[in-house]
Amino acid sequence: MNELDTARRCADTMMQNDRASKALGIRVEIPDPGMAVATMTVRDDMLNGFDVLHGGLTFALADTAFAFACNAYDRQAFAASAQIEFLRPASAGDVLTATASEDHRGRRNGYYSIEVRNQAGELVALFRGRSVSTESALLK
Amino acid sequence: MNELDTARRCADTMMQNDRASKALGIRVEIPDPGMAVATMTVRDDMLNGFDVLHGGLTFALADTAFAFACNAYDRQAFAASAQIEFLRPASAGDVLTATASEDHRGRRNGYYSIEVRNQAGELVALFRGRSVSTESALLK
Amino acid sequence: MNELDTARRCADTMMQNDRASKALGIRVEIPDPGMAVATMTVRDDMLNGFDVLHGGLTFALADTAFAFACNAYDRQAFAASAQIEFLRPASAGDVLTATASEDHRGRRNGYYSIEVRNQAGELVALFRGRSVSTESALLK
Amino acid sequence: MNELDTARRCADTMMQNDRASKALGIRVEIPDPGMAVATMTVRDDMLNGFDVLHGGLTFALADTAFAFACNAYDRQAFAASAQIEFLRPASAGDVLTATASEDHRGRRNGYYSIEVRNQAGELVALFRGRSVSTESALLK
Repeated sequence: MNELDTARRCADTMMQNDRASKALGIRVEIPDPGMAVATMTVRDDMLNGFDVLHGGLTFALADTAFAFACNAYDRQAFAASAQIEFLRPASAGDVLTATASEDHRGRRNGYYSIEVRNQAGELVALFRGRSVSTESALLK
Repeated sequence: MNELDTARRCADTMMQNDRASKALGIRVEIPDPGMAVATMTVRDDMLNGFDVLHGGLTFALADTAFAFACNAYDRQAFAASAQIEFLRPASAGDVLTATASEDHRGRRNGYYSIEVRNQAGELVALFRGRSVSTESALLK
Repeated sequence: MNELDTARRCADTMMQNDRASKALGIRVEIPDPGMAVATMTVRDDMLNGFDVLHGGLTFALADTAFAFACNAYDRQAFAASAQIEFLRPASAGDVLTATASEDHRGRRNGYYSIEVRNQAGELVALFRGRSVSTESALLK
Repeated sequence: MNELDTARRCADTMMQNDRASKALGIRVEIPDPGMAVATMTVRDDMLNGFDVLHGGLTFALADTAFAFACNAYDRQAFAASAQIEFLRPASAGDVLTATASEDHRGRRNGYYSIEVRNQAGELVALFRGRSVSTESALLK
């Protein structure tokens, strides 16, 4: 099994059980090991008191892309920290895409950058996360 | 109307329309202006592929506390950036409490710290956010 | 030897060899284990092209306070990450004080908040850092 | 004057007066507008109590690259916040290179990523900064 196959099988295994991402309608694709593209359509029940997408759900979309990017190597990895810059609000009906790429991967820690853009290609948020890898395999 | 009344009326106004926080079952109390306490019970549909609370939803709880803390002054404020450290996972049935306090509030920017703890009082996450205030009133 | 004695002996040991902090004229006091207060006077050779204190040296002062706070337990600890918000510039002659306190200390990671203030008590920067502890003793 | 000329003249103007960067022996080159490459050789008087480069000075090198990258447009810009991940220590004699690139530049805020590497090309630190632009021209 090559590296891209492994990454995609890890993603399939995670997504089957990822009730949170499913409840948010998030879909994930793996273009390459260490990368992930997650998409989400903003629904009415995702809006905050100012009628824009709740920042926590912008973060959740980016965090899903991050989680799938750092779990590409058949080692369970989890998010240890993250930082987000909110650049532009999103509204109901917007289709957001979070693209995760790997800045650096060491033995234990991985560093990922995620860009969230809307359907017009405008930047909605910049996210950077640190993951920690465990020794546990992800695939059965 | 005193400052605490203003803060609480702002919170009521925001919560009425905050479909995202309601969908997550989040409840908010305002002990003091610039503070907010948000609680959420972890549901099955909030779990990720590793059977723990999706980090995006931990963030969303803290972000709600942050939003209510920085919107206490009848000026619409929004989250500009945030940083989170994930310290401990949360599981289905856990009751999480996010407590927001104000580190500093300038003319335009506010800085808030939010601690997320579980029902045993253990620290689940540390969150720090920066808000930007607008000139728009929040109350009608 | 009690905890405060240990913390202070660790600080003395570190400072003897800390050529960078000495070159910046930084002085450190340890009021309690897990806390540190570092002071620095802004010199001409610390100014950037806009005639204010170089942000890297504001950070260095806070980072020194952070390092001394997290090395209070006779276990060598190092800074793993940090985040800083620059709130107000500092000028030549200003006397800055960085006060570090411990937000949380786990087995491996510690989390510290540092406030940097000028001689008028105004907030210059907010800093938050994560440390990693090793098994190596600090004291001989 | 084309954009690259403007960026380089801004850098020259800043560096003439940047006593802090000069005191640290930092040299800056501008390969393109919005980019900057800063180099520094680790000296004995930059070491901390553990005989490695003081994290504040690693940050200072990255911060200089950041400042020169965001001041390329003849508008004075300053660092508003920054986040750094320390990946690998540096020792006396190491030659570090900080490479800044622009992730996004809006009307007011700019977002930059800086990588710090040693002479072996190994990653020493990842830095991300947010700048705020003013209306003041930088060139006379």
